[in-house]
Parts: sequence; C-alpha cells; structure tokens
Amino acid sequence: MSAPDAAKNAVFVKSEDYDGTRIKGPDFNQPHSLEQLLDSYERIGFQANGLARAMELVNKMRNWRLSDEPIDPDLQTEELDEQERAETKCSIFLGYTSNLVSSGLREVIRFLVQHRYVSCLVTTAGGIEEDLIKCLGPTFLAPRGDFNHDGAGLRRRGLNRIGNLLVPNDNYCKFEDWVVPILDQMVVEQERTGDDRVRWTPSKVIDRLGKEINDESSILYWAHKNQIPIFCPALTDGSLGDMIYFHTYKTETPLSIDIVGDIRRLNDLSIRSKKAGMIILGGGVCKHQIANSMLFRNGADFSVYINTGQEFDGSDSGARPDEAVSWGKIRIDGESVKVYADATLVFPLLVAGTWGRAHWADEQREQR
Amino acid sequence: MSAPDAAKNAVFVKSEDYDGTRIKGPDFNQPHSLEQLLDSYERIGFQANGLARAMELVNKMRNWRLSDEPIDPDLQTEELDEQERAETKCSIFLGYTSNLVSSGLREVIRFLVQHRYVSCLVTTAGGIEEDLIKCLGPTFLAPRGDFNHDGAGLRRRGLNRIGNLLVPNDNYCKFEDWVVPILDQMVVEQERTGDDRVRWTPSKVIDRLGKEINDESSILYWAHKNQIPIFCPALTDGSLGDMIYFHTYKTETPLSIDIVGDIRRLNDLSIRSKKAGMIILGGGVCKHQIANSMLFRNGADFSVYINTGQEFDGSDSGARPDEAVSWGKIRIDGESVKVYADATLVFPLLVAGTWGRAHWADEQREQR
Amino acid sequence: MSAPDAAKNAVFVKSEDYDGTRIKGPDFNQPHSLEQLLDSYERIGFQANGLARAMELVNKMRNWRLSDEPIDPDLQTEELDEQERAETKCSIFLGYTSNLVSSGLREVIRFLVQHRYVSCLVTTAGGIEEDLIKCLGPTFLAPRGDFNHDGAGLRRRGLNRIGNLLVPNDNYCKFEDWVVPILDQMVVEQERTGDDRVRWTPSKVIDRLGKEINDESSILYWAHKNQIPIFCPALTDGSLGDMIYFHTYKTETPLSIDIVGDIRRLNDLSIRSKKAGMIILGGGVCKHQIANSMLFRNGADFSVYINTGQEFDGSDSGARPDEAVSWGKIRIDGESVKVYADATLVFPLLVAGTWGRAHWADEQREQR
Amino acid sequence: MSAPDAAKNAVFVKSEDYDGTRIKGPDFNQPHSLEQLLDSYERIGFQANGLARAMELVNKMRNWRLSDEPIDPDLQTEELDEQERAETKCSIFLGYTSNLVSSGLREVIRFLVQHRYVSCLVTTAGGIEEDLIKCLGPTFLAPRGDFNHDGAGLRRRGLNRIGNLLVPNDNYCKFEDWVVPILDQMVVEQERTGDDRVRWTPSKVIDRLGKEINDESSILYWAHKNQIPIFCPALTDGSLGDMIYFHTYKTETPLSIDIVGDIRRLNDLSIRSKKAGMIILGGGVCKHQIANSMLFRNGADFSVYINTGQEFDGSDSGARPDEAVSWGKIRIDGESVKVYADATLVFPLLVAGTWGRAHWADEQREQR
Repeated sequence: MSAPDAAKNAVFVKSEDYDGTRIKGPDFNQPHSLEQLLDSYERIGFQANGLARAMELVNKMRNWRLSDEPIDPDLQTEELDEQERAETKCSIFLGYTSNLVSSGLREVIRFLVQHRYVSCLVTTAGGIEEDLIKCLGPTFLAPRGDFNHDGAGLRRRGLNRIGNLLVPNDNYCKFEDWVVPILDQMVVEQERTGDDRVRWTPSKVIDRLGKEINDESSILYWAHKNQIPIFCPALTDGSLGDMIYFHTYKTETPLSIDIVGDIRRLNDLSIRSKKAGMIILGGGVCKHQIANSMLFRNGADFSVYINTGQEFDGSDSGARPDEAVSWGKIRIDGESVKVYADATLVFPLLVAGTWGRAHWADEQREQR
Repeated sequence: MSAPDAAKNAVFVKSEDYDGTRIKGPDFNQPHSLEQLLDSYERIGFQANGLARAMELVNKMRNWRLSDEPIDPDLQTEELDEQERAETKCSIFLGYTSNLVSSGLREVIRFLVQHRYVSCLVTTAGGIEEDLIKCLGPTFLAPRGDFNHDGAGLRRRGLNRIGNLLVPNDNYCKFEDWVVPILDQMVVEQERTGDDRVRWTPSKVIDRLGKEINDESSILYWAHKNQIPIFCPALTDGSLGDMIYFHTYKTETPLSIDIVGDIRRLNDLSIRSKKAGMIILGGGVCKHQIANSMLFRNGADFSVYINTGQEFDGSDSGARPDEAVSWGKIRIDGESVKVYADATLVFPLLVAGTWGRAHWADEQREQR
Repeated sequence: MSAPDAAKNAVFVKSEDYDGTRIKGPDFNQPHSLEQLLDSYERIGFQANGLARAMELVNKMRNWRLSDEPIDPDLQTEELDEQERAETKCSIFLGYTSNLVSSGLREVIRFLVQHRYVSCLVTTAGGIEEDLIKCLGPTFLAPRGDFNHDGAGLRRRGLNRIGNLLVPNDNYCKFEDWVVPILDQMVVEQERTGDDRVRWTPSKVIDRLGKEINDESSILYWAHKNQIPIFCPALTDGSLGDMIYFHTYKTETPLSIDIVGDIRRLNDLSIRSKKAGMIILGGGVCKHQIANSMLFRNGADFSVYINTGQEFDGSDSGARPDEAVSWGKIRIDGESVKVYADATLVFPLLVAGTWGRAHWADEQREQR
Repeated sequence: MSAPDAAKNAVFVKSEDYDGTRIKGPDFNQPHSLEQLLDSYERIGFQANGLARAMELVNKMRNWRLSDEPIDPDLQTEELDEQERAETKCSIFLGYTSNLVSSGLREVIRFLVQHRYVSCLVTTAGGIEEDLIKCLGPTFLAPRGDFNHDGAGLRRRGLNRIGNLLVPNDNYCKFEDWVVPILDQMVVEQERTGDDRVRWTPSKVIDRLGKEINDESSILYWAHKNQIPIFCPALTDGSLGDMIYFHTYKTETPLSIDIVGDIRRLNDLSIRSKKAGMIILGGGVCKHQIANSMLFRNGADFSVYINTGQEFDGSDSGARPDEAVSWGKIRIDGESVKVYADATLVFPLLVAGTWGRAHWADEQREQR
C-alpha cells in the first residue's frame, strides 16, 4: 500500500522562486558592540525586526528635511526660501503613559526634550505629576523587582505600588506642599482683568509647573525652557487633580482649566507640520489624542507604536497602525510599525540606536 | 538499581488535608437554562470563576442597604432615620471605553442607565460621541467579523474601522450637522452674565447633548433624564473635539470647557457614598479616574474590572485590583475581582445574570 | 480666520454607500433565554461576534453530510451508496490543553465524547492524567478564586497550584497506586511473542487506561467505550511520565511507547475524512498536531481556535487561522475563526449553544 | 465649607521610612556602550528590570561551582575531591519553541551549544527540523516584516508563513530528499539483532540527524559533537513526522521511536545535577518538560522564563515561576524571574550581556 497521492501533492506543493531578506541571527563568536547588536535585529524576525523597523522610521523622522522634496507649486511651502526649506524638519509627536515616567524612561524622555529632538508631548495626569514628584522624593524598585507584594500590607505602610515600583505616599504629601502655593498664584492670575488675565489650559498649567520646578532632571523643566508644549487633556485624573480638588475648598474662586484652548493648539500644530511622525509608548488618551490630531493633516507620515495592547478587544489602545490608516490618521502611503513590548525594554534601545548614536558621534566630533 | 529515594520523596510529598469548593463543570446531559449555566461557572475555575465572582460582587452592590449595617455613633449616618437607611444604596460607578459604545454593549449600558441601576458613568470622548452618532447612522460589523481589512482601501471608501466594526465617515458628517447649532447655543449661554451664565464642564456638556438627542436608544438621553452624571475629562479627544476645534474658527468667542468643576463633582459624589462599587470595562482614563475618586473615601467596597490588560508593563490599565489596594483606592477589606476578557463576551452575561435576572423576575411578578 | 480647507477635507471625507450587519446589542428590557442571549452575540461585535461565528462553524460541522454535496465522479466517494452518503459526517478533531481538564471543562468534553459528537482528541500528558486523577480525588478552587497564593507555602502543605485551582499532591500518590499494576501488565503484554505482542503507542496506552478506570465521569472511559482515539505524542511529559520513569527502575524490561504508530494513525484518519473540522482549545502540541494532520487532506474545512495566544511572537500557539492557510493546513476556501478568550469562559457557551441546544431538543422530543 | 477630613486623611496617609533601589534611567547625555546600557536596566523598572534580573540569574548559573558550597557529609558529593568540586558546574537546561529556531535566535542558541555553555536542550519538532532545513535553504523575512500577508495567496505561491517569516515549501521538499535515506538506514539499524540493534528514542534520532547534517551553522551538529542531548518527546509533530509518516508506507518494517527511554534519560540528568538552572524561551512542552524533570531533584535552583503567556487562563505556558514552586519544580529557596517579552527582543541581549561579555573578554585576553 502506498500513501495517497493527494496527501503527497498537498505536502510537497512546489514554491515559486522567492528572494528577500534572509533570516540570520548575530554570530556571537564575534564581539558585538551596541550598534552591531542592534543592526542584527532586522534579520532576527518577529519583534526583533519590529524594533529594527522602529529604528529605521525614527531615523527617517530625524533626517527628513523639506528640501529633500520637490517644490509643490500648489502648496504654500513654496513661500519658504531654500535655507528655510533645508531647516524645516519633521515634527515629532511623542506620547507616553504615566507609568513610564514613574519608570526610568523618564530620563530617556528628558534627554529627547532637553535637546529639542521632539516637537510636542502628550501624556496623562500621572505623566505630569510623577515627573515633578521625582524632584521631591525618590521612586523605588519593589523588592526583587516583584509585582506580587500584598496591597493591604503596602497600604498600611503608606507605600503605593506601580507595577514593580514603590512610591512612598509622603512624596505626594510633599507634592501638595509644593503645588498649593502655585495653584494660589494661578487663581490670582486667572482673576486679573484685561490682557493680564490668564485663561488656563492644561498645557499652560504644565508649562508653569515646569518653570516652577526649575530642576534639570525634569521633563517639564526642559519642555518649559525649550517651549515644547505638553498636552494632557485629562489633567485632573491623578494626584494633581487631588490637589486641585482640595484647593477648590480653600479658594474663594476655584481654578478653571479649559480644554478647548488646547485642542485648538494641538490640532494647529499638526496642520502646520510639513511632515509629521508619531512615537507613542502605551495606549489610552496619549495614543488616541496624537493620532486624532494627525487626521487634520490627512495622516502621519511615520508612526511608531510601542505597547502591549491587542486588537482583539477592539480598543484603540490595542489597534494596529492599519486601523488608523482607515481613519486617515496615518497617511495611506505612510510608514508605520507597532512593536509589541513593554516600552521599558525597547525604548532605551530605540533611542540609543537613533538619537543617541548620532548625539554621541556629534559629541566626539566636537571633542576633536 | 533503584530510583533515588530523594527523587521519590520530592515527587510523592504528602499533602495536608484540604477541603474547599470542588471543581466540576456543568453536566450537559441535563438541559441548562441561562441561569443554570451561569451558576455552573463558579466551579469551572480560571476566568469562568472570575465571571462567577463578578456576578457575586455585582449582586452585593445591588443588594446592599445602609440598614444592613449597625449604626455607627461616630458617623453622620446616624442622622438618617430607619426608612432612609433602608433606602440608602451602594453607589455604583460604571466606567467603559469608547469602543464598547461602538459595540453592542451600548444597549446593555443603556439598560442600566434607563433603570437607574448605576449612579455615575465615566468614559472617554468616543464613549460620548459614538452613542450620539448611533442615533444618526448605523455602525456595521465588518465582513466575516474580520479585523484584517486593508486600511488604505477602507480610507478610500470612507469607512472607518474600529476592530471588526465599520463606521461610514458620513456618520461623522451628520454628527457635525447636528452638533454645531448646539455648540453655537452653548457659547451664547456661556457669554450670558449673572446667574444665567453657564460655566461648561464636560459633564454639563454631556448632559446637554443627552437632552438634545432626545432618543430612547441613547445612553446620554437616559443619563440626562435620570440625572446620572457622565464624566469625561478628556472630552476633546475624539470627534466631538474635532467639531469643537472647527467651531473655534467659526465663533467670535470660543467655547470654554472647564475640567476643575468636574473633578470637584466626581470626588464629592464618591465622598458622599455610604458604600461604593466600581465596575470598569477596559482601561485608560475611565479606569483610573473612577479608582482615583475612590481614594477620597478610603477605597471602594466592591470592585469589578473586566479588561484584557496585563500588569507586566506597569500600566494602570493592566494593574490588578491589589495594586489599587496599596493606593487606598480599594479598601483593605474590600472585595474585588478582575475578569481577564474582552468585555463584549462577559458583560452581557454579567448583566443578564444579575440585574437582568432580577428585572425579569420583577416584571413577571408585576404581570401576574 | 478659518480652519484650513485641507483639514476639513480630511476630516469630512465622504463615504461610499455601505450596508451589512448592523451592530445592536441585546435589549434587556425583554427577558433573555440562553438561546436568545447567544443569538444576540453576532451583532455585538469584537469577540462576542467571534463566539457567534464559532457557533455557526460548529453547527456547520455538526450538520454537514456527504449527501449535501454533488457526487464528484473523480473521487472515490462515488463508491458510497445514497444511504452511506447521507450518513457520512464531518470528522471533528478536538484539541485541548492539560489545564482545561483540570478545570470544569472536563465535564463538557466528556459530554462530547460520551455522545460521539467528536471523532478524535489530541491533548498533552496532563490532559490524560488529570482526567484519571479526578476519578481518584477532587481538584479544588483556590480560596477566592485567586491566582496569588504563595508557592512556598503551598509546597510545604503539599498543594499543587494550577492557575486558581489546587490539587493535593496525595491525588498523584493515589494515581501511582492505581497506575503501577497497569504498567506492569502492559510490560507483560509487550513482551509476549507473536500476534499477542502489543506494540504500545500513546493512543493504545490511553485507550487501556480508559478501559481500566471504568468511571462514567471520565473522558478516557467514554473514548475507550466509543472507540474515539486520543492522541498525545508527548505522553511522558507529566505525572504519567513520572510514574513510567520510576517504573523503569522496577521492571526488568522497561515499557516502550512508540510515537511512529500514532502519527500514522492520526494522519490516516485525516486523509479518510470526507470533511474535517478542527476545534482547538489552547495552544502547543494539541494545536499544532491537529493542524499538521490536516495538511494531508489539503486543509481543514472548518476551524475554530479558542485561546489567549498572540501572533506577535511568531509562535504557532498564537498564530491566526490565516497562517495555517499559508501552510495548507486550512483549505484556501475553508471557514475559520479564532476566539481570543480563556476557553473556560467560552467553551461552555459554545457547546451549550450548538450540541447542547440540539441534544436537549432531541430529548424533549423523545420525552413526548 | 472645607473638604471632609476623612478624605484628607485617606489621601495624605503617612508612609514609613523606606529605602531600596532607586529608579533612575540611563542618562543619554553620556555615551552608552552595550554593557553600560544593559547595566542601566536594573533601575528602569517593569520588564527592563526583569531582563536585568535574568542576566543576574544567568550569571549565577554560569559562575556557580560545587566548591563554593560547604561539603555536606550527608551527601555523596563528599566523594568528589577538591579539584572535581571546583570543576563541577551548574547544569543548564535550555528550552525553546520551534518558531525561535525559524527566527535568528537559532544562531544565538548554536553559540551556546558550540561552546558547551548549556547542558541539555528541550524543544518541539519544529525546533529540530527547522535547524536542519536552514542548512538546505534560507528562511526569509516577510515583506516589511509584516504579519498580515494573505494566507490563500501565499499557499498558491508555496510560501509558508511563520509570524513575519516566510519559508518556501521547496525547503521541505529538499528536507525529504535529505532525510529519507537516513530513515532507511535507521530502520536497518533497528532491525539488527543483539548489541548492534538500536532502540531509537527522540534524542537518539536527533543526535544522528546532527551527525549527518555535518554543518557548523547547525545547533544539532554541535549538540552531536559536544554530546549535549536534545529532548523532543513530540518529535513526530512537524515536518519530520510528515516524512516519517510517508516512510511508513515505503518500508516493510516501520521505524519505531520510543519515548520512555528519553524520559529516563532526562530525569536522570536532572537528578545527577549538583545545581540546576532552567532557561525557557516560550511555552508548551519545552517549558513543562524541563520544569517537570526538576521535580526529581526537588526543584531548580535558578529559573529564567521568557515568554508572552499570561497566567489568567490557567495554562502552564503562562504560569509564573511561583506556580512551579508549589509543585516542587522550583526550589522553595530558588531564585527565578519571568521576563514578559517576545524572546527575539530579549534573548540576544541576555546572551550578549552574560556569556557573550565573558566570551569576548576571554578572547581578548587570549589575543594579548
């Protein structure tokens, strides 16, 4: 008896000739520098390839200049002279969730803001206050980096857990001491009349906090200094909101923070960008808000998502870039990648392999 | 030769006597009604048990009355007379992400709001506008319920994808036609002087939209009618924000929407609750904002999370209830469960097995 | 100043006329039976729709008969007479991981095997031994259905944890007492000469264990009784392997279990199926082995995956059905769905809504 | 009116004095080498910390020597002289799923086997055949590293997809040409009598294939050369099983592959280890089989899991190390970590930062 021919035909289907990038991992018989290791990721496949592609797209964001493109007589870009065109860069919109500022990514983000490598930031309330609070007291790694410490015991000890991090509640008490006088002053400015009157929006509040903290370790400090706007529509959803809440009981006129002014500011920023890239770490508002603003320019040109969300539940957080294409939030001919990973693993490598590499090379050149 | 004794000792460790709930699935040799099937879930284990526990906690939320508890002479609750105590219920804070309103969970949530089964809602911008837009045009299931339809093709056809749903972009055009006159009127009211002046907050805007839509299929309609507040701090992060953005170019005085008023309102609601339960579908702001408000009463009593997030990335979205205990957002002696599932699978069962069961039984009684 | 027209054009793209299934959730103002609730899932979207589609495909598997299709003169099926064609059904290959037998899905699977609703089973070692061990001692739900009980404490108490289940180690000691005499006898039969000699394969070992356990609560018992083969290539990877390991130290001639005989048997079964459906709960060997066997008939006709795996890590466990299409394991014109969920939530509903519904209706008819 | 004191007390709970590792990310104002960047991971938190801890545990596995521990007069280890004790290392059991051999991790694993850095390997069928097939034809990255290429189109072109990789089906045809003569010869050896008769087990088959492939790029080649056993109980669950299946139709006496011999061999290896570490990439059989063997020595001393599985579905694949502690598969005082990530992102870093670092330093020393 022989095996059915149909079975053989099914198993031994012939393939067409195919060529493309061949998979081959790094050969560790040779020493590997950081750059060599990162260069090897393209040919490892799966998410290693995702990181490689993210580096490629970030480099496109970094290197693009308006002068690379032909002058389009139908667009106002022709108004720019050659020099201006050579200096017009891609706007980079960086989004990140609160927990990443609690983590050591804060220092990586600060590096980008300090050197004006990004154009605008979007985050949630914790992404604002955790940056400030870290200027007032430290955040700790939980014992053994473990996520399973009994919550009731921690509450009794006044230790707040964020994943495998611990933040003593005293840090939030210190934050209140620091922020209340600023809130007082903000009410004063809001109650002025005429041109001196300030209409607070989240981005204006954040800018003021960045000015006041006056600490070089802070993202907000550098954002203020470099006039990089930070958007955070749900600014009250966190410790800062707690302080503002208590403050409404202490002040005759409560603070008012208007979110309409900021949506105008953010979308205008998007429209004015000649080229736009998104880098979004995590999901929720910081992801949706940036992508939504891109709709106003018919989509982002380059998009890098880094998160652990999945599309199967239909959430925006877990949606692949291709869903944003259907909405016009990523251009039909845009380039995009989603890296499925906790950003703490991937973002330091992504920044080191792109801006870091260039920054360090520049420095070396200067030192010569 | 014999096997090492140490190996035997390790493998055949003696166990202590143990007793508890025994695992045993439903015996389908017997017909199962919905109630019988749901009752069987407790003894199936894993997430089936999670759903069973969620039903248990929702029933505790539903059934609790202040009169069940001894009068505490130190608390102001003693001011309530017996009748009032018997009528004082547990406040239920329901949070949900935007995509769930795009899905058929909208009708399930509406049922809860229509019958005042919940006390307050928290969602994100899409959770507001999708409810309204569905009154203006339908949302469709993507062909074959598939998540993999080419984004560029969909964009060319003007079809926006949300997971395996499709929303024609015309629905958003209709939304603009509907909402712009309301925005105009809201500016008028904001610019009044004296007591007639309206200081808009997201919850006030949402209440007005619910009044205007005047459609019994709408969550917002019933929330307005039953005076159940809907909170949405990042109200501008969606199509409504797009309309408001364009509106700023059409109006002399832009609309102003203040988020401070709402944080005051939400936290006061939490503080005034004699007992409080959270039911949170999905992550992001709707999850954090409810939990954060619970801090002001030293934690929720009952907590049900339904989402697909994971804790390993340190996100609040993926955090287990025990993380909230460390922050005081869930009481040290509170009861909680997280069901790891897409809410579209679980929430209809959860509602059917708790409120639904009771509602349908009441109706039958009335019909007799 | 007015908003840029380009922005308006991007936001208010016109959509083509579109029609399809409209999303609308169940209206709980009306009482819902199990059947009505399950019927509503198609129009809820996301994974609720996935479950609806799984029910649809299982019903196609259940209802298909060879006589539904035109006689193909090129195929040997023409040899069958009309009656035989009307009785030739779709073969259903059911795979499941070990933990699901530890859970209450064991009873649901047993129902399917008891009534010959499936043609063959594939599982891993625990999927075999846990079924037997449950005849010897109970499996428990961990306190509060919690997954976070300290492992060291449990080990000291001799309690083995499987997710949120606990199995006293004594159950495994009882299993040894029960299985060792059977292993002795199996060696005897293996050492016979001539036609009486048994060449053990995993499926033969499992069939014998099913015969010996002689317990109507057992999957293996019914599989033996109904001659439904159970495949388990890695049969030694579990407690049964532990017992076999110790047995090699006690016996002069060790047992020999050949895996080649079973791959022949499984693939032949696939080839002989006129129509074939896969239902696979979980990942790993039980998923890959069934799909691989389908290659020999150029792919499965109907495929239902239920698991929590994700494709981003390139694992077979997380792969979508469409990956199997590329390999010829699912037919190019086959129908398939993956439901992203813990099977304990979904499989009872899936079985109740298909086989259960029909079985209960049949019973009612008989009772009349 | 003032805010309720109870609210203030809840929000401003005092914390105990706490000290520990402080979170602080890398300062990219300074250039970072690979080593410096990896050193920074400990203080980033979340999974970055997980990778740091994995490096710490691998280094403990690498550096442990029996002579580090006091002589225990109750154990047979005292029979070893000082020199032998100084040379007795920790046994390292490395498990990995099939897809990782399809990816570029194959070269990383080969490096470990080539230099005898690991003691034994456990994998599934694809983990065997993909290594061999790569000696016969290349594996490709799918265009754009995308996971969404239409399965039907790929099948028609004879291109098999593995995540974002493509393997031409011709590679499997070449594999048949190569392997069939070897299977023929294995039957010959099996049918010999007396001492020359070979009783094939999966590990013996694999060793022979490693000898025959004779290619320095191959994991199997080096495993054969260095006599590192590779276990694969479900050896027939893949292309090799397809070839063996067809071979049963061509041969008078079919090949017989016994899995009992291998469970004896693997567990003996575990028992004989003075110290044992597990490194497991992915889930399924390769994870369970290694952990199960550790039970025979009352648990592993060091355990590193790298996978994307989650515990909520009760699967062994997703279980945290602490579940294995309850079973005695990890010692009560053992050290363990699970890194939640696709192994392609993390494993190259883990190997580079431990064995690689040491290997490259040794080489430099030798060159001097």
